[in-house]
Amino acid sequence: VILIGELLNSTRKKVRAALEAQDAAFVQDLARRQAEAGVNFIDVNTGALLDREIKAMEWLIHAVRAVTDCKLSIDSPNADVLAVGLELAGPGTMINSISAESKRYESVLPLALKHNAAVIALGMDDAGLPQDEEKGFEVIARLIERLEGDGVRREQIFADPLVRPAGADTRIPSVVLNVIRRVRAAFPDVHISGGISNVSYGLPARRLLNRTFLALCMSQGLDAAILDPLDGHLMGEIAAAEVLLGRDAYAMNYIALHRSGKLEEVS
Amino acid sequence: VILIGELLNSTRKKVRAALEAQDAAFVQDLARRQAEAGVNFIDVNTGALLDREIKAMEWLIHAVRAVTDCKLSIDSPNADVLAVGLELAGPGTMINSISAESKRYESVLPLALKHNAAVIALGMDDAGLPQDEEKGFEVIARLIERLEGDGVRREQIFADPLVRPAGADTRIPSVVLNVIRRVRAAFPDVHISGGISNVSYGLPARRLLNRTFLALCMSQGLDAAILDPLDGHLMGEIAAAEVLLGRDAYAMNYIALHRSGKLEEVS
Repeated sequence: VILIGELLNSTRKKVRAALEAQDAAFVQDLARRQAEAGVNFIDVNTGALLDREIKAMEWLIHAVRAVTDCKLSIDSPNADVLAVGLELAGPGTMINSISAESKRYESVLPLALKHNAAVIALGMDDAGLPQDEEKGFEVIARLIERLEGDGVRREQIFADPLVRPAGADTRIPSVVLNVIRRVRAAFPDVHISGGISNVSYGLPARRLLNRTFLALCMSQGLDAAILDPLDGHLMGEIAAAEVLLGRDAYAMNYIALHRSGKLEEVS
Repeated sequence: VILIGELLNSTRKKVRAALEAQDAAFVQDLARRQAEAGVNFIDVNTGALLDREIKAMEWLIHAVRAVTDCKLSIDSPNADVLAVGLELAGPGTMINSISAESKRYESVLPLALKHNAAVIALGMDDAGLPQDEEKGFEVIARLIERLEGDGVRREQIFADPLVRPAGADTRIPSVVLNVIRRVRAAFPDVHISGGISNVSYGLPARRLLNRTFLALCMSQGLDAAILDPLDGHLMGEIAAAEVLLGRDAYAMNYIALHRSGKLEEVS
């Protein structure tokens, strides 16, 4: 699985405080630990800083770049922030996110093309969040086709079916699993990603739901995820699922993880 | 998921020693704790006692029946042992197991019919263990149809695709998952069960592989399992998977488990 570390997000209180106070040591520690945990991208989000978001993103990227070369995922609803982040972060950067909403699509597409960036493509359009499997699949499929038609290469697209809380309606996770399965069948070469922890919002014992859901999503074809890479149980479950889905030949990675001691506390 | 507790198995050293020594307190403790953990059946296996197996089964069932009314699963390759166990255990007993091997089928079928017993139906025939998905599905499908043709009701059949070690060949778990999916599609009303812990044989951090595999099997349609009900992580993962697969409306069971404190150590 392609891992996108979610911890440098300004909606988290401590991260927001560190951004306000320009506490470089705090954000650098989180960046370093996520990189060491093996993430492919570190997500950086400064949205909670509102009108100071651009300055905050500049500061955050400089701070992170001082300690790691790990690729970044620039996470903002604001295309100007994405533009600044992409300039600073260097090649191989990911955009979080584009969607089929007209305004968002039109403002983010040029950035994706200019920087040859990977894009998280959220399955929603101007009609809002699709509620059922049929509509959910249709919106994502059209978005993928449109991105390709506009010049984004298939392997740069990370389709995201928008994981929503199971607590609101326990039929929701099955809808997401079915959308993943259909997107995988229709588009074998795109990546499929998701913000896994949304599934447990409002329920107790969230980490248990999150890791179980990630394994289920992987079995339907998800191959990327935005998650907490410092959660040893979650990382263990990913490694186990890779073995069980035939994606870790001879279980070599799993056995190596075990030898490194990382599975001890979780098994 | 219909739970079959696996702990009273004579291949486990301590259980075998307790059977040899007729240590009723030991086996009764294991029976009681499995029943309290919520199993639907307690598996009883005395195979390691060899020529004393019948006597051992009689003693074991008497010992267990003194502390719990939980249904039993009589587990033996020997039809004479099954016959004795079924007489002693009372109504609702499960037979572990029948298969499409001629000798086994012919010796066990009359017992299933006489006692109106549930049967674990192993997907193997006189040609041995099927190695690929096609053959694996075919053998189980034929066995289910034959059992039904011979008078076993569909809801009494627990089809078992024979979980084998992933360590031997990491393609194996995918074959099992695909067989489960096809059996579920072709026979919506049969139960599908499996000896989950076999998947991790020979690999490290076994419990992590076991519980992840169980969640994946459930997503393909497995609705019963032979397992260790005292493994809190495993039981937690089952509860989480039930929520995520839409089988726990409003997450009521999950929330109740959390309130009872059972999810605390595992999340």
